[in-house]
Amino acid sequence: MSGEFRVGLLGHGTVGAAFAGQLALQAERIERITGLRPELCGVLTRSQGSFEEILERANLIVELMGGIEPAREYVLRAIAAGCHVVTANKQLLSQHGEELWDAARDAGVQLRFEGAVAGVVPVIRVIQESLAGARIDRVHGIVNGTTNFILTEMARTGATFAEALADAQRLGYAEADPSEDVNGRDAAAKMAILARLAFDTPVHLDQVRYEGIEQIQPDDLEYARELGLGLKLIGTAERINGGLSVRVHPAFLYPGHPLASVNGPFNAVTVESEEITEITMSGPGAGGTQTASAVLGDVISAMIPPASVPPAGTVLEIVHDVISAFYLHLEVADEPGVLAQVAQVLAEKDVSVKSVVQKGLGAQARLVMVVHPVLESRFAAAMQAISELDVMRAPPRAIRVLEEQFG
Amino acid sequence: MSGEFRVGLLGHGTVGAAFAGQLALQAERIERITGLRPELCGVLTRSQGSFEEILERANLIVELMGGIEPAREYVLRAIAAGCHVVTANKQLLSQHGEELWDAARDAGVQLRFEGAVAGVVPVIRVIQESLAGARIDRVHGIVNGTTNFILTEMARTGATFAEALADAQRLGYAEADPSEDVNGRDAAAKMAILARLAFDTPVHLDQVRYEGIEQIQPDDLEYARELGLGLKLIGTAERINGGLSVRVHPAFLYPGHPLASVNGPFNAVTVESEEITEITMSGPGAGGTQTASAVLGDVISAMIPPASVPPAGTVLEIVHDVISAFYLHLEVADEPGVLAQVAQVLAEKDVSVKSVVQKGLGAQARLVMVVHPVLESRFAAAMQAISELDVMRAPPRAIRVLEEQFG
Repeated sequence: MSGEFRVGLLGHGTVGAAFAGQLALQAERIERITGLRPELCGVLTRSQGSFEEILERANLIVELMGGIEPAREYVLRAIAAGCHVVTANKQLLSQHGEELWDAARDAGVQLRFEGAVAGVVPVIRVIQESLAGARIDRVHGIVNGTTNFILTEMARTGATFAEALADAQRLGYAEADPSEDVNGRDAAAKMAILARLAFDTPVHLDQVRYEGIEQIQPDDLEYARELGLGLKLIGTAERINGGLSVRVHPAFLYPGHPLASVNGPFNAVTVESEEITEITMSGPGAGGTQTASAVLGDVISAMIPPASVPPAGTVLEIVHDVISAFYLHLEVADEPGVLAQVAQVLAEKDVSVKSVVQKGLGAQARLVMVVHPVLESRFAAAMQAISELDVMRAPPRAIRVLEEQFG
Repeated sequence: MSGEFRVGLLGHGTVGAAFAGQLALQAERIERITGLRPELCGVLTRSQGSFEEILERANLIVELMGGIEPAREYVLRAIAAGCHVVTANKQLLSQHGEELWDAARDAGVQLRFEGAVAGVVPVIRVIQESLAGARIDRVHGIVNGTTNFILTEMARTGATFAEALADAQRLGYAEADPSEDVNGRDAAAKMAILARLAFDTPVHLDQVRYEGIEQIQPDDLEYARELGLGLKLIGTAERINGGLSVRVHPAFLYPGHPLASVNGPFNAVTVESEEITEITMSGPGAGGTQTASAVLGDVISAMIPPASVPPAGTVLEIVHDVISAFYLHLEVADEPGVLAQVAQVLAEKDVSVKSVVQKGLGAQARLVMVVHPVLESRFAAAMQAISELDVMRAPPRAIRVLEEQFG
């Protein structure tokens, strides 16, 4: 099986440009997975391109324009023409979702929208597919990165809401007009979509009660810290007395809550049900490349039935000698010069010490250290040399240390 | 479209029994989603049932026997007969995966295995489908709940490995023979499967280097805490110099690491790539009902093309008045009896105080309190009454507190 799969792109902002780049970069790999070569067959921008011409050529339309019109009209026309659609448009889905889903169901085409909620965090697919067999009781989410960044900054620095918002704008975590982020409406749209999927009930944005974070005072955060609480803008969708509540508001969390450690511009969603207890997914909530990656995952899924069998692939060589940092625990003689001897052995083997603590006296004397990342074979040689020192009272013990490699 | 979808079940232990129960309970909902009514057409146990008879009737075989043979033979025969297969068998996939995937690819049937890694945490589907468009650089995982429980207990109580293992066995978090869990081999099998999917490279269990946690001493954990480190059994699969390293070993984590806060019997997996930065998924790693729920999600996916359009569903009523705990911030006059007045108003409205702190003097005097969960309408009435008290210097401020509702 081989051939082309033609993708028409509506909108060429940050996400649209990132999507076009990723599609080109991954085209070969996608062909290996799906048997079809994806190809951009047209791009509609504010000033260029014709929707009609793009639709005529496309197997699938990617809608990244945002807003209600003309996005709604274009998506409906694409569906009517038998085209699959992938969109990241939360406004559209939270206000006109039923109309679009009905149309897609009638036309027998796919309408995918992972990028509409929590960027690349795969909440849509997990709720729709992985958890299709579970009766979901509750969904909690931090689904707006701007407000989570602002609240994290307020808690960390004691800044006011206005100061933290200005920081967020300067760093690109908030838009010039941040009102739908900070008043909770953006999060409400996303919770309407999640609630629709989790509870099989149509939920319109107007049915979601929301509050924002503009009124939060620095001393609320300060007093709350004394009570052991951290503040987040939390979206909730839950079964209550046979009905459904969907809402967004600031809420304090106790430290053990799975969402309590989600800081900065990250998003996270927790899904609870009797069968699964609860699962939590987290990751960057926005950003052009991240959302584009979610969109591309949807496009690949629309190209083929789910890839339940992994492709044959190109074979990578299996590597065994890797680089690690290490914690090192040495039971040593309690005499002068021990540290110097150990340090010299490490230096000879090019193992660099990050921190060292001397502990205990006499038969309890110990050196506890952490060394910087080093090739494991080289560290093993240093361990061997150390174990041969006269001042060692027991074989050395070592445990790897995972360095922070993110952001 | 309507009809039956017949599921044959091999194995009736904890997971098998839970799966059969959930399938029966959810049959009606699954029929609404898929248009087909799922039905158990036979169960093979150690003492009862005939594989041949079950296979003859089945559209799909669920393999929950564990071990290599006869599971391997049965799965291959089911595939050859054109049956879809869902399995949770990590031993089988990490040692004979290529043979099974080749067979499924040739026969054009689905072979799904979400339950084989991290229970209901949907790492398989997310790596195979959501992240199909991303070039993955690294996967880190806590994929064995027994060892994570033991390490959490050792850190919390100062227990030795042997003591914590005995606790785990008593609480049902470790089996009578825990050797494959504590020596790292169970985690190695799961990392072989994840590496296969993330890097399109065949990985056999024998190619995974692993170490366990038997040698960890209580004072390693004690000293490490002074250095700000926490200990986990970490599986890693990552690109290195154009090759692939897959390994399992204990490792210390700095507190900011996304896996650092995963405690007790939980599992978690972090996936990193340039496009997505990193996403983390966590949840209960084992347990009969959780793994059964992952298996059922796979069965539903095998029944239909992916449900990219949500079903029409039964409509739940939207509820607005819900129960919340609240943080309450009151700027009050600095005079005797203020707390008593506020407490009386709260008592009259049936709002129960959990904790209260008095702060500041004179014009800075404040009451900061947390109240137990209460219907929001009732709390609003209490707020109104409090705002009318003469001793209030400013309108009361309230923020919700999310109570811990898990396990």
